[in-house]
Amino acid sequence: MKLLLINPNTTAAITERMGELARTIVAPATRITAVTGRFGARYVASRAAYAIAGHATLDAYAEHGADQDVVVLACFGDPALAALKEIAHQPVVGMAEASCLAAAALGGRFAIVTGGERWRPMLIEFVAALGLADRLAAVEIVAPTGADIAREPEKSLALLAEACRTAVTDHGADSVILGGAGLSGLADRIKDEVPVPLVDSLVAALRMAEMLAGAGIGKARLGACSTPPPVDTTGLGGALSDLMRGARR
Amino acid sequence: MKLLLINPNTTAAITERMGELARTIVAPATRITAVTGRFGARYVASRAAYAIAGHATLDAYAEHGADQDVVVLACFGDPALAALKEIAHQPVVGMAEASCLAAAALGGRFAIVTGGERWRPMLIEFVAALGLADRLAAVEIVAPTGADIAREPEKSLALLAEACRTAVTDHGADSVILGGAGLSGLADRIKDEVPVPLVDSLVAALRMAEMLAGAGIGKARLGACSTPPPVDTTGLGGALSDLMRGARR
Amino acid sequence: MKLLLINPNTTAAITERMGELARTIVAPATRITAVTGRFGARYVASRAAYAIAGHATLDAYAEHGADQDVVVLACFGDPALAALKEIAHQPVVGMAEASCLAAAALGGRFAIVTGGERWRPMLIEFVAALGLADRLAAVEIVAPTGADIAREPEKSLALLAEACRTAVTDHGADSVILGGAGLSGLADRIKDEVPVPLVDSLVAALRMAEMLAGAGIGKARLGACSTPPPVDTTGLGGALSDLMRGARR
Amino acid sequence: MKLLLINPNTTAAITERMGELARTIVAPATRITAVTGRFGARYVASRAAYAIAGHATLDAYAEHGADQDVVVLACFGDPALAALKEIAHQPVVGMAEASCLAAAALGGRFAIVTGGERWRPMLIEFVAALGLADRLAAVEIVAPTGADIAREPEKSLALLAEACRTAVTDHGADSVILGGAGLSGLADRIKDEVPVPLVDSLVAALRMAEMLAGAGIGKARLGACSTPPPVDTTGLGGALSDLMRGARR
Amino acid sequence: MKLLLINPNTTAAITERMGELARTIVAPATRITAVTGRFGARYVASRAAYAIAGHATLDAYAEHGADQDVVVLACFGDPALAALKEIAHQPVVGMAEASCLAAAALGGRFAIVTGGERWRPMLIEFVAALGLADRLAAVEIVAPTGADIAREPEKSLALLAEACRTAVTDHGADSVILGGAGLSGLADRIKDEVPVPLVDSLVAALRMAEMLAGAGIGKARLGACSTPPPVDTTGLGGALSDLMRGARR
Amino acid sequence: MKLLLINPNTTAAITERMGELARTIVAPATRITAVTGRFGARYVASRAAYAIAGHATLDAYAEHGADQDVVVLACFGDPALAALKEIAHQPVVGMAEASCLAAAALGGRFAIVTGGERWRPMLIEFVAALGLADRLAAVEIVAPTGADIAREPEKSLALLAEACRTAVTDHGADSVILGGAGLSGLADRIKDEVPVPLVDSLVAALRMAEMLAGAGIGKARLGACSTPPPVDTTGLGGALSDLMRGARR
Repeated sequence: MKLLLINPNTTAAITERMGELARTIVAPATRITAVTGRFGARYVASRAAYAIAGHATLDAYAEHGADQDVVVLACFGDPALAALKEIAHQPVVGMAEASCLAAAALGGRFAIVTGGERWRPMLIEFVAALGLADRLAAVEIVAPTGADIAREPEKSLALLAEACRTAVTDHGADSVILGGAGLSGLADRIKDEVPVPLVDSLVAALRMAEMLAGAGIGKARLGACSTPPPVDTTGLGGALSDLMRGARR
Repeated sequence: MKLLLINPNTTAAITERMGELARTIVAPATRITAVTGRFGARYVASRAAYAIAGHATLDAYAEHGADQDVVVLACFGDPALAALKEIAHQPVVGMAEASCLAAAALGGRFAIVTGGERWRPMLIEFVAALGLADRLAAVEIVAPTGADIAREPEKSLALLAEACRTAVTDHGADSVILGGAGLSGLADRIKDEVPVPLVDSLVAALRMAEMLAGAGIGKARLGACSTPPPVDTTGLGGALSDLMRGARR
Repeated sequence: MKLLLINPNTTAAITERMGELARTIVAPATRITAVTGRFGARYVASRAAYAIAGHATLDAYAEHGADQDVVVLACFGDPALAALKEIAHQPVVGMAEASCLAAAALGGRFAIVTGGERWRPMLIEFVAALGLADRLAAVEIVAPTGADIAREPEKSLALLAEACRTAVTDHGADSVILGGAGLSGLADRIKDEVPVPLVDSLVAALRMAEMLAGAGIGKARLGACSTPPPVDTTGLGGALSDLMRGARR
Repeated sequence: MKLLLINPNTTAAITERMGELARTIVAPATRITAVTGRFGARYVASRAAYAIAGHATLDAYAEHGADQDVVVLACFGDPALAALKEIAHQPVVGMAEASCLAAAALGGRFAIVTGGERWRPMLIEFVAALGLADRLAAVEIVAPTGADIAREPEKSLALLAEACRTAVTDHGADSVILGGAGLSGLADRIKDEVPVPLVDSLVAALRMAEMLAGAGIGKARLGACSTPPPVDTTGLGGALSDLMRGARR
Repeated sequence: MKLLLINPNTTAAITERMGELARTIVAPATRITAVTGRFGARYVASRAAYAIAGHATLDAYAEHGADQDVVVLACFGDPALAALKEIAHQPVVGMAEASCLAAAALGGRFAIVTGGERWRPMLIEFVAALGLADRLAAVEIVAPTGADIAREPEKSLALLAEACRTAVTDHGADSVILGGAGLSGLADRIKDEVPVPLVDSLVAALRMAEMLAGAGIGKARLGACSTPPPVDTTGLGGALSDLMRGARR
Repeated sequence: MKLLLINPNTTAAITERMGELARTIVAPATRITAVTGRFGARYVASRAAYAIAGHATLDAYAEHGADQDVVVLACFGDPALAALKEIAHQPVVGMAEASCLAAAALGGRFAIVTGGERWRPMLIEFVAALGLADRLAAVEIVAPTGADIAREPEKSLALLAEACRTAVTDHGADSVILGGAGLSGLADRIKDEVPVPLVDSLVAALRMAEMLAGAGIGKARLGACSTPPPVDTTGLGGALSDLMRGARR
């Protein structure tokens, strides 16, 4: 299985780290290609950066997606997820989406813990658009961004564990998603301090991707999730321009 | 991985058929134990039968669940799913729950096609309780029950394809769940006639189960999904009685 | 009027106490038969016990319901209420359902005060399924279970009054339901300490039952609330088996 | 028990007819006083007439409510119901409110059948404000107004039965409310043609009123349902002016 | 443009003050007629006063509305707003409605700050009926009523600023509506102490009115917002009676 | 007043036509600058084109927004509206947002009529995210895209009028939004055939923009609508790069 991992945060070091982590998570036969957005914010932590990242996601897919079996959008918050599902011919999984669905499968209500204050309302809206607002117990934000946490995880472990416990005791969360690549791999180190299951967003996305690809679910040929009609464009990267005008289908 | 498949429809032939199908779906290393409820309706197609099946589900789990890695509740509609998650020490996946979450992961809105008129409001309520009411495009019922379809699938293929197309064209469904063990395996035979992806409920449940078990997500030690306090009972099967009074923990 | 009161908590002493209380509440001409579930938890305080109680409720109805005019399901939380309504030929009233509807009739928003921590999410879901989520101000739980309170009400009066006041002052409740048979009769003793109306769940259920029976409302002959088609079963009590296969209609 | 029935439709003949009907419904010991609004539309069939009827309702209560045990607001749609509950010292029941709560107690979803096209959106909003939007299957309107139906019920029976059947077969209603005094008493004449239970709105209101009065539920002393602070007014009827400035408390 | 401002609080001094303020806000060519309700509470601060104010609003419109271009209902909470829209032949704007829509246009979630404890649940219901419940962050009430604040604004400035800050910091409001004529003009004096935009409810209503009148949007000729059928009335003011029976159309 | 109109459909002819139309709508003193997106689809009619348009919108704002008083995002559907509000220092109005809020101000429920099948689910989600789902009666799509309609409006008038009437008679719309610049100016030509008010989306956006700019509402200094923290970027246009890293503040 060939899995494309797109990181629209334009920091190649984060992509590399995610790619390495990912290889430890997927099945041995799964081959991962991890790519970085060509343009946009070094890390996405505002609505503006998020909107740009949506474009960068599509651009990266157009460049690298052709012969992949499944795509993981590896920026927690999933910029342009629905657009990517529309235009891709293979299954697409978002890191936030997969985490929320996996947490929903655990029963009860879930919380999200992540870094970067701006993400709070954005994630609440994301979960609502996903249709799971009633299952969301809380979004707890720690001060360091995901990028900060990835750089020096030691410094954030106590903060993260505290945020998880707050989600459980104050908001009744029955599970907690550690959201963002920067938090990936930390669940094991704080799980003894948190009395409910922890969901690692990278693990959830990769396993959901393997599941969907393995289930052999095809592409819609009609309706809102089918490939949109071709359209001429201007000023886009060549691959995306080709994809939009249907040259690649 | 040891996977327990519980069929609370008390027809052993259905259990056997599901067990055989399941073995063709899961990873080679996954060992399936398929068990039938000890009491209740031959097939569940009313709220009363559903309520009894909830008890039978717990009873079957108490009898067979001890050393399993993951549990699949294989009656589409998932009687006593939350109770089973509460009391089980391993991940539990319901066939309807897993299908809805997988369909949600495809994007857009999904429909459910199944057999047995009584299931319609029950499934609408189920999806609402799951939190995905806004993602549900329609529940389309065909006249034969799941049991009828399982017996003579040829007779139902045209009906099922028609119901799927109605869900797409009249209700805007972007994917369709074929719900119930009796419909398992039929997706391949009608997919050319349905212009959106089809989700096989047994496939979805088994793959979600393998995913959750593989992700190593633990049991809640606090809150609504943790093991409930022990309680004395009367008149129950021995294994369930033991489980309820905490003798097995 | 003949009124069947079903207590699926398998503690006969609670049934007796409720029967006695009930006789002081209903009209002189109402004759009460109070029966206890044949199997299940001594008191229902978890989802697992609740699921089993649903089956026990149907079993008790099958055994005792034949010539009754109305049925009260006397376990606050109402296990298998919809199934019982489906299968019974007379009106059925649940203690939690009747309390919530009566509280809604008072105007504003209501709170529920009861015992047993596990009931909190279960009751929130119950009220949501009833359709009244927007009218629910809070569910306040006191530590002793309903069974504990029934045994030694004196010890719990202060706790209960405090929980009621919290519901009013912190959550804006305009009325408070004292939920569960164990709390029945205590409203009078704390009402001076609570500045909003108190709803006794047993009183609400009995009066709603008398009202529905008196209004001469018939049984649905079509749709989700009509008697379901007969089905063969296995392993059930004889009366329930007969009821399920339509032998009694 | 003294029961005040307020008809804010300013047609005394309707009030008389309702009073007579009511006396055939309530317990022998219940004494009914039926009063007509002093001002407003001859029958309420628009938002403007409804707004005026709200004032007329309070005015009638101020004039006649002093020594009553319970109040029934007998205009289906319940103008100023919340205001009347706020200002009255005894329980208040609205005809639409009581019908919806009684229908909810029957299980499944209910429909409303009534006369007068303008009522459709008004009743949908009413049910939503009551919190029961998810339980409402349909509002079906027949062309004649409630007043027309009351005058010549024979002419409307077929229309009403047809509207009820449409609610059941096209919209899945599990019960149907015949809304409005004009339709009171007609349930018996069409029930054989409608396969689900019919709720007579006058019967529901009177029995709910007797139930609440009998349950001895008191008046809120705090919060949104307690008596509001006194306020000076101008241009009101003397009794209402006194009530508003607290002269009567 | 001729703009009718209706104040159903029956205190002429408040009407005068609003009229003066309004003239400083609207375009030079806009001519304002400010009228006071003929009957009802001196200021509206309960559901009962609100219901009466609805009638007074329609009465004032019938008396003064004939040749106006647009109408502003200048009592925050907007009694009988939908009825006035139904019966008026020109656009109608409510002060609370316009404020909420303007605040929604700013993005994020808004809070309402006003005076008079009873308004809290009334405004929450108002916003829900408007359809904007999900955009409402909080309703914060200060102890003095709008009338008190209008009389001595100095005394309330600190209180109001504090309430605004609470809405922002505790409830995440992205904008705050200062609701009620009594608070009009105070935004400038506290805006430095509040870190999000303030919406003055009178300014919002007047500008929305000018916008709608200027956009040349016509009156519905069909459906729920069109003029209702004529109806005979009794006991109403002559102009309203004429309007209701269609004499003026 | 200086008003920036951003058209992220990359067809300059549409921008020019909108600019000309806009000048006939705004106040004489309002000076309009109309700019076209530098990259993206010729017209936006899919989720992919929409995601790219979001980036193009921010890019255009960064280039042209510095000294403007208010911004109109003139692509019905409003790509990156929330991001633009976040990053802009002046009020921002979207064409779809303003239309929905104006339609809400008319009372009852509104419909949207526009061209391009893909917009249907996108607009339903847009209205839901705006918080107005309960006010939306229908989204009716005509086959020609907005671009087609703009080119040859004559050909589409009958289609549009028919779609509007369907919205009214089949879905109960009380007003209809003609969505998209291509439909601007057509309301006058079909209004006699549609029995409810028509909202022109360009008119609504321009007047809402003038209203917000005129009301002097400031920029949030805290929270989700305030300017986000600076962030380094790569590969962006120079002006947007400067804006993102805070060089322009």
